[in-house]
Amino acid sequence: MVDRLNKQFDFIREIDKEKLIGRQNYLIDASRKENDAEHAWHLALMAVLLSEYSNEPIDVLKTVTMVLIHDIVEIDAGDTYAYDDAAHNDKRERELKAADRIFGLLPEDQAKKLRELWDEFEANESPEAKFAHSLDHIQPMMLNDASGGKSWLEHGIRLSQVLKRNENTGDGSEALWEYARDNILMPNAEKGTLVNDKADDINSFDKK
Amino acid sequence: MVDRLNKQFDFIREIDKEKLIGRQNYLIDASRKENDAEHAWHLALMAVLLSEYSNEPIDVLKTVTMVLIHDIVEIDAGDTYAYDDAAHNDKRERELKAADRIFGLLPEDQAKKLRELWDEFEANESPEAKFAHSLDHIQPMMLNDASGGKSWLEHGIRLSQVLKRNENTGDGSEALWEYARDNILMPNAEKGTLVNDKADDINSFDKK
Repeated sequence: MVDRLNKQFDFIREIDKEKLIGRQNYLIDASRKENDAEHAWHLALMAVLLSEYSNEPIDVLKTVTMVLIHDIVEIDAGDTYAYDDAAHNDKRERELKAADRIFGLLPEDQAKKLRELWDEFEANESPEAKFAHSLDHIQPMMLNDASGGKSWLEHGIRLSQVLKRNENTGDGSEALWEYARDNILMPNAEKGTLVNDKADDINSFDKK
Repeated sequence: MVDRLNKQFDFIREIDKEKLIGRQNYLIDASRKENDAEHAWHLALMAVLLSEYSNEPIDVLKTVTMVLIHDIVEIDAGDTYAYDDAAHNDKRERELKAADRIFGLLPEDQAKKLRELWDEFEANESPEAKFAHSLDHIQPMMLNDASGGKSWLEHGIRLSQVLKRNENTGDGSEALWEYARDNILMPNAEKGTLVNDKADDINSFDKK
């Protein structure tokens, strides 16, 4: 049992590094940017509270565990900003290598289980994975909105980019996507914290 | 539905402040202290990975949700350092008031559910609450050990204080407490990162 516990604690110590992986969005008080561990905690509670809005029935514990681990690979691979196209080229390769190393610290049964759960998140096909992705897109949108759009303004983000990034957010939860779009996203295009490059077709949400 | 979602998002925005509540222990790289949201994320993953060691069978989703919310009251009440006896005098009163306000932001059914879960954690009687407390005590012990005992050294913490604080840690998981005591805690008393004031009766763990 000590050998098993040693492996489990090796993993538990390793993931402490996720607290040092910075994201692009700010906390709501705009005092500093968020890190991956804080983001995962926030998503986990959102999964518990908002599961009723999933398009399909979901296993909540599975979804919570999925969001708790979804960014662990960034300990090695780093955070890739949603709107940095160049960095996305080798993102998959970097993250697969990280998944091998980090989940591989665990005892074999748990390594396999968590790796399969991360693969499932990445494949984005199961109801749980789709709902987790909806939350993963809506949470930073909410923080950006509540912090006055600071991160969007810094990067000169355009409404069309956010709509493009969220073209599948409704796949996990149509209700959450519609709520977030109308109550969190669109008011920022109207007040200019997002560059409103879709002013002429704001209701069509085309994907050009 | 919009009214319900507004309440849920009011709560989800409010708890962003937990990322600003500092704790006394350092991250493993000792670069800075941990915050409550990071701590809760770490505990949630520990609950998933270590539930097999609970003394009694536990509902893992319930335990995970419990640890995700267990420190939310500190948004208003602040973090009370484990070894600050004076601050513990009015801790309960400050935290009850905070629980009323913060959980009260949610729709009534969810406010009731999370409040009952937090009350259950505080009462520390159910298998889930006892296991959550075991993790809540072992996680900072692990970080203190892995960061070279920096927080213990800063506060001149004595082995007897840590043993006293952990006199009920085995109630949730005897296996985890024995592992943590022998592999994480005791080596620090031996090398002096904890003041070894129990050298003469190191195996008796009396509660004087």
